[in-house]
Amino acid sequence: MDQVESIKFPNVGKLDFKSKKELRGEWRRKADALIPELQHKTVSPASLAELANDPEAWQGIGIRPEKKASELPLLEGGKGKSLILDFGEHHVGYFVLSMHIADGYCDSPVFLRLLAAELPFELAYKAENFKGGLSQAWIQEEFIKIDVLPGSIRLPRRYACRYLRIDVLATPGALIFDSVAFDTVSAANYLPPAPEHLSALEKEIYTAGCRTLRDCMQTCFVDRPKRDRRLWLGDLYLEAKVNAVTYRNFRLVERCLYLLAADIDERGMLPACAFEQKGMRTKCFIPDYSLLFPALLLEHGKASGNREIMEEFYPLAAHQAELFQDFLQEDCTLRNTGSYWFFVDHDAKLEKETSEFCIYLFALRNLAELARLLNREDDKAEFLGNYSHWREIVRRKTMDPDTGLLLSGKNRQISEASQIWGVLSGVLNAGEGRRALAKMKKLPDVIRSRNPYLLHYLLEAYCICGQEEKAYALIRDYWGGMIRLGADTFWEVFDPAGSSPVLYGDAHLVSACHAWSCTPCLFLQKKGSAPEIS
Amino acid sequence: MDQVESIKFPNVGKLDFKSKKELRGEWRRKADALIPELQHKTVSPASLAELANDPEAWQGIGIRPEKKASELPLLEGGKGKSLILDFGEHHVGYFVLSMHIADGYCDSPVFLRLLAAELPFELAYKAENFKGGLSQAWIQEEFIKIDVLPGSIRLPRRYACRYLRIDVLATPGALIFDSVAFDTVSAANYLPPAPEHLSALEKEIYTAGCRTLRDCMQTCFVDRPKRDRRLWLGDLYLEAKVNAVTYRNFRLVERCLYLLAADIDERGMLPACAFEQKGMRTKCFIPDYSLLFPALLLEHGKASGNREIMEEFYPLAAHQAELFQDFLQEDCTLRNTGSYWFFVDHDAKLEKETSEFCIYLFALRNLAELARLLNREDDKAEFLGNYSHWREIVRRKTMDPDTGLLLSGKNRQISEASQIWGVLSGVLNAGEGRRALAKMKKLPDVIRSRNPYLLHYLLEAYCICGQEEKAYALIRDYWGGMIRLGADTFWEVFDPAGSSPVLYGDAHLVSACHAWSCTPCLFLQKKGSAPEIS
Repeated sequence: MDQVESIKFPNVGKLDFKSKKELRGEWRRKADALIPELQHKTVSPASLAELANDPEAWQGIGIRPEKKASELPLLEGGKGKSLILDFGEHHVGYFVLSMHIADGYCDSPVFLRLLAAELPFELAYKAENFKGGLSQAWIQEEFIKIDVLPGSIRLPRRYACRYLRIDVLATPGALIFDSVAFDTVSAANYLPPAPEHLSALEKEIYTAGCRTLRDCMQTCFVDRPKRDRRLWLGDLYLEAKVNAVTYRNFRLVERCLYLLAADIDERGMLPACAFEQKGMRTKCFIPDYSLLFPALLLEHGKASGNREIMEEFYPLAAHQAELFQDFLQEDCTLRNTGSYWFFVDHDAKLEKETSEFCIYLFALRNLAELARLLNREDDKAEFLGNYSHWREIVRRKTMDPDTGLLLSGKNRQISEASQIWGVLSGVLNAGEGRRALAKMKKLPDVIRSRNPYLLHYLLEAYCICGQEEKAYALIRDYWGGMIRLGADTFWEVFDPAGSSPVLYGDAHLVSACHAWSCTPCLFLQKKGSAPEIS
Repeated sequence: MDQVESIKFPNVGKLDFKSKKELRGEWRRKADALIPELQHKTVSPASLAELANDPEAWQGIGIRPEKKASELPLLEGGKGKSLILDFGEHHVGYFVLSMHIADGYCDSPVFLRLLAAELPFELAYKAENFKGGLSQAWIQEEFIKIDVLPGSIRLPRRYACRYLRIDVLATPGALIFDSVAFDTVSAANYLPPAPEHLSALEKEIYTAGCRTLRDCMQTCFVDRPKRDRRLWLGDLYLEAKVNAVTYRNFRLVERCLYLLAADIDERGMLPACAFEQKGMRTKCFIPDYSLLFPALLLEHGKASGNREIMEEFYPLAAHQAELFQDFLQEDCTLRNTGSYWFFVDHDAKLEKETSEFCIYLFALRNLAELARLLNREDDKAEFLGNYSHWREIVRRKTMDPDTGLLLSGKNRQISEASQIWGVLSGVLNAGEGRRALAKMKKLPDVIRSRNPYLLHYLLEAYCICGQEEKAYALIRDYWGGMIRLGADTFWEVFDPAGSSPVLYGDAHLVSACHAWSCTPCLFLQKKGSAPEIS
């Protein structure tokens, strides 16, 4: 670990890459110095609500308001009663319950079940039916007892939710909730106004995107506030993009850069994710996430104007591409993949090799631009030389001469992912990209993008190919589809064609507020005031 | 409430009985000034234990040690694992769990079910089988989640238990308990040594009695630390007796006198119980408990030497007897019983009227003695005059001329309770008492004492009749019976002949550490060093 590794790009080798152990400590200290003060805002329930089985509703569970907020101070629950509070929008924070017993006679403890939910469907959760492959502890369900009332209790754990269900399991008498306050937290606890020139739907999408990002902005940029609650490099890249045009909290981005850098492995590879608590380092490495670091650094440096941090992390950024070279083979397959996780998208059927090669090329282009900005012309030439070499190989080995499509894997799979990353990496030029992307909508048996993470890159690809309208249409269709189903933050996964996609074995583990889904804001912010084409 | 009520004993009427509202405030302030500093003592588990269905064991559930305490630092639990910790003896306090994940990788919350139990039987508790008529919230079961490990968590609620069961519902990896500390509390957190002259069994009984009292000595004398956790006048009288020969914490007794006095009702009647938290007053009034107040005050005054408090509460003590006069009718039945609860014993079949009359006479005798000590000779004459009047009536109306037994109610019921209180009140003299008590063991269809509260008074009655040996035999038989079944504190109810008595609809609500059961200490302390007769 203390061994200094040389950079394999010969001309980049002159960079001073100190002992990694020392660097880690230094970066962790810098990360800690940037911990933000969270902004608190107390939110009251907007209404009491009722659940209803509804085949038309998303996930089969509908919700309707039952009473107005003004009636809440007299909210009453006897034993066996269930209350559902709707806080009006998704938030992240802590609950403070103030209660008394109607006749003041509190001669036994109150026993409550609390269930915080992002979506109505989660409010019907029954522990015994859980089928998840991840820890059941993630379910936002608590059982609490309160010995003395009247009084207030602040629950110690943080929840991400719009709804709170309270089941009164035992009470000495009619239990009156004087207030149920949601002490919400975020590093940027507000919603920027949507640009005036957007349509009503686009404004809703813009606001839901900002809300999603807001609720993911905690003491670091988390992937999702409900579960995991961790800094992921792939999510951070997209969050930083949106942050640059909305909250512009560049300190928080830098904290995250330092947190990730502090957890590089023995070889200097950036982790896929990092924990905020000290002493725990991830076991998860996703090479295509590590390859996003040059773009993240470049875009952050340009947006924030912080040239110093670009200088500081430039060697680390270059090193990610260098490490990736170990996987590259001239036949466009990957070797030594070992225990690494190659992600690109959730789709298990996706053949990822061509995408991975393109993401490598994407990294080289960003490194070349970094080198240019930092006046390292020799490095720039080095990166571009390597880029040309591998671009030519990828085109030669993966492009179908008849269709112009990039194929992937030994089965020569046609996927949208390959074309998207072909465009983003410059393997396909704008014209080729336009044609390839168009074919994705027409050909049968194409593996299409269905999830927000990859769809973000499709939006980028459309824009690169000069097809902004297609990007906006996709935003209105896909992200707007979530809005039409009642979303006020964007979901981890969504398939407008089918039923709710289930990840991790149980839909209760899927996040309804997910960092990588917030990117429509980026495009809508840039959008001209032209009339909406639907 | 502000109306000053005159005392009905004409000669006691001169006592200054201020506005009750003012008095309540003054007594509450005095009670608050006497809140004790609790003594803390950290207790570690003695062993890991296993449950076993065992028809021979009390309540059908046996327990056996599995591992020694020295192996505990490496206590390990994966998901689905259950651990049972035996802390060696019953205690009251707070749990502090220190844990880590074996490989340090805590990427999801730990989810635990905790179940604190006084008896092994409670460790098999399943919420869905609960049948209790009282709040299920009393069950010492908690569900907790811990987000970040390694770390320590102190549970905020207090438990009364010997055993702690931990069910690991979810964990990111092998969960290691570095320690499970029981931060025990009591106003007298130690066990006085048993008198040397006692036999081995008697010493065990003595120690279990002291342990019972110790665990009921919190910021007031509670009836039981598991459930209710409240000051009850009937329990306090017995606790104060034992305290006087063991812990001698007279300040705590006085705090309790003030707490009860601060909650007198509009007529000046002492409540059956009091809450420590402010602003909540009991709805429960037990006239035969209120009638114990003169004896409690007298005995406390004599043991503590605090003449001032006797002076202060003498009018209140007298007033309890005076209020009781409203119930008395010359035919030895009670009138105006209204919403009062006449207790005497748990037995639903018991006809209580004769006992109630005798308890009234018992109060008058104690008041006469109080008056004598306080040099109020006129009052004394008043009380004794009233005593003679009603004693004559009780003998005339309730004594069976053929058998010499006191009968009760319109069915002329024969019960041990009537004879016991006949002896304690002096309605029966020693010879009559001896004969009556002896008949209780021989006659068929007698309602016998089966619960510790009434059996305490049987012990007293034996001693008054000069039959100390019968008292010691009963202690060895009844309280020793609990010891033989594994008790280390004495139970709320116990029937050596039958199976576990169920109160409140579910045996899980019954207390295994109950104040009124601690009184054998009192008799064993006095016992000569004569050889034990078994």
